[in-house]
Amino acid sequence: MKGIRALARHLDISIGTVSRALNGRPDVNPETRARVMEAARALGYTPNQSGRSLRQGVTNTIGFMIEMSPDANASSDDFFMGVFEGVQTVLTRHKLDLVVFPCPAQENSVDYLARIVRRGLVDAMIISATRRRDDRVEYLDKAHIPFIALGRSDSGPNMRWVDLDFEGVAKSSVERLVAQGHRRIALAIPADDINLGHVFHDAYRATLEAQGLAYDPALVFHAQRVLEGGYDLAAAVTSLPDRPTAILLSSEVLSLSLYRGLQERGIRAGRDLAVIGFRNNPRARFLTPSLTCHSVSLSELGQTLAETLLAGMPAYAALYPERDRNLIWPMELVKGESDDFVFADAGTTG
Amino acid sequence: MKGIRALARHLDISIGTVSRALNGRPDVNPETRARVMEAARALGYTPNQSGRSLRQGVTNTIGFMIEMSPDANASSDDFFMGVFEGVQTVLTRHKLDLVVFPCPAQENSVDYLARIVRRGLVDAMIISATRRRDDRVEYLDKAHIPFIALGRSDSGPNMRWVDLDFEGVAKSSVERLVAQGHRRIALAIPADDINLGHVFHDAYRATLEAQGLAYDPALVFHAQRVLEGGYDLAAAVTSLPDRPTAILLSSEVLSLSLYRGLQERGIRAGRDLAVIGFRNNPRARFLTPSLTCHSVSLSELGQTLAETLLAGMPAYAALYPERDRNLIWPMELVKGESDDFVFADAGTTG
Repeated sequence: MKGIRALARHLDISIGTVSRALNGRPDVNPETRARVMEAARALGYTPNQSGRSLRQGVTNTIGFMIEMSPDANASSDDFFMGVFEGVQTVLTRHKLDLVVFPCPAQENSVDYLARIVRRGLVDAMIISATRRRDDRVEYLDKAHIPFIALGRSDSGPNMRWVDLDFEGVAKSSVERLVAQGHRRIALAIPADDINLGHVFHDAYRATLEAQGLAYDPALVFHAQRVLEGGYDLAAAVTSLPDRPTAILLSSEVLSLSLYRGLQERGIRAGRDLAVIGFRNNPRARFLTPSLTCHSVSLSELGQTLAETLLAGMPAYAALYPERDRNLIWPMELVKGESDDFVFADAGTTG
Repeated sequence: MKGIRALARHLDISIGTVSRALNGRPDVNPETRARVMEAARALGYTPNQSGRSLRQGVTNTIGFMIEMSPDANASSDDFFMGVFEGVQTVLTRHKLDLVVFPCPAQENSVDYLARIVRRGLVDAMIISATRRRDDRVEYLDKAHIPFIALGRSDSGPNMRWVDLDFEGVAKSSVERLVAQGHRRIALAIPADDINLGHVFHDAYRATLEAQGLAYDPALVFHAQRVLEGGYDLAAAVTSLPDRPTAILLSSEVLSLSLYRGLQERGIRAGRDLAVIGFRNNPRARFLTPSLTCHSVSLSELGQTLAETLLAGMPAYAALYPERDRNLIWPMELVKGESDDFVFADAGTTG
């Protein structure tokens, strides 16, 4: 069964009604629309006005896969909720629904993703927490399902993605700390293979070297991406014989426990150790000292993510003609109290 | 079309294979299983071995509806992620998938829920953030779809629910503060109509009165359920002519900004004002002072929620025979530094 005529006959509904239902027109009874959509999906309806496949354009649902590792839970904070809100703002325009698929920690993420796709639950997918090598990207390419990644990956040179400006944040943070007189600047990146860690690290190193400072691997700390990660980080940083005077975090989630860990060792964040966090999490300004970090509107990020996805789907591409396939999302420094001092140690600076 | 025979004929697959697919047996090719499930859903297959409706047992998906208000985003924290993890642990046993439906803030929650149900995306629903009167409960009852609420509601006297022990937390907190010498104990509850606010308030009042203390409505603060809520709360509490010496929060999310707001007014949390939070959020122990609060395993809570839901679904009820329809989840006090002093003000205590 392929055409709208056969579908209408099967459902015993007029072709006009089936057509309006398939096109998401509001003048169709929702029950009728649901019946039409389900039959279209089950019976392999292909609209003849375009090359839309069975999977495209018939569920009116966009999936968003998130990872449920215990790590991700604690560090996710309000991040995804904010992004979902922005994605929904755009989808609502097109009568599309956002559905979130939380991949269980113990499950292989490709198997999980494949199950969602095979069941025909979504027209397109958004994936997040991309790895430097990410098998989900290859799977989605082969399955010919439209998708976008929140994050880059070496596995998808041609895929659509939107990512935060980790390079920019690392660069401006290192430059700022150097200008304040710091020479030993530590970096905390995730302990796992998430791509942002690589991006952050490379930009940190390049900026140090551009500033004429030696890159010292002993100053790069691998912190667990959990809330408690900052506590362990405090222990590691303070146990160095030649302690750094500043630290740059690739996740602001670590800041609270870092502060506490430092305090228990008699070291004052923002006085004895300058701290620059990553994102302007709403908590940043209530910390003491408030955290110097970088602003990002999660809602706008989510909107752009959705629009960039739709720009790659035949049914919506014409509505988003000017959209680039890839976008690095700019972030701006928000001054806090956590690096609000000029460091001048006669022993190490000239 | 009703029986398995007709379904097999339609799909041109053997009855045995269709049966194995419908029963979630692992020896069926996933693609085949997806085709069978989709056809079963679209064509109205009803298994004859039980009274399972079209909606039950054919999608193998359980929905979890969460609310996407800007409020809920900030305060949700890691709460839902933790609960999802527990729900999934149980669903995985039965080859069921958890799918999360984030209801957009601007959409009517009943309309949203009805759309999910009508589209036949799920076998059962979990709802959260129940209101004292909640139209979603009536809708789900009428739609004859199995569901459970994370939270109580006056709208569902017979519904299945699991809820946190707000009464127990309010009671033990007030008793503890009274034993420490406090006589003016404030309460912060949500500004909206979420049911937990009512439950918390009633238990707070009853416990005060049982302890021989007058209930003073001036000490009940309605805080926005956002991270910043504690900051405004600090202003409100400290502006009272006869300031309370202790405060009980119905959400621990307020604590960080409350501390900051107090500090900016020269008032030390845990010294000048005792604070008891609600849940043992992983952040609680890294705050300074660490927050006295109440422990709950979100994973176990999620597991119980899922099992209590399954106990009400014909296909799974036999596996969970001893499960009560309703459960108040106990929480235990975790001592922190935020109320770690005995208050003795000669002016107000005897």
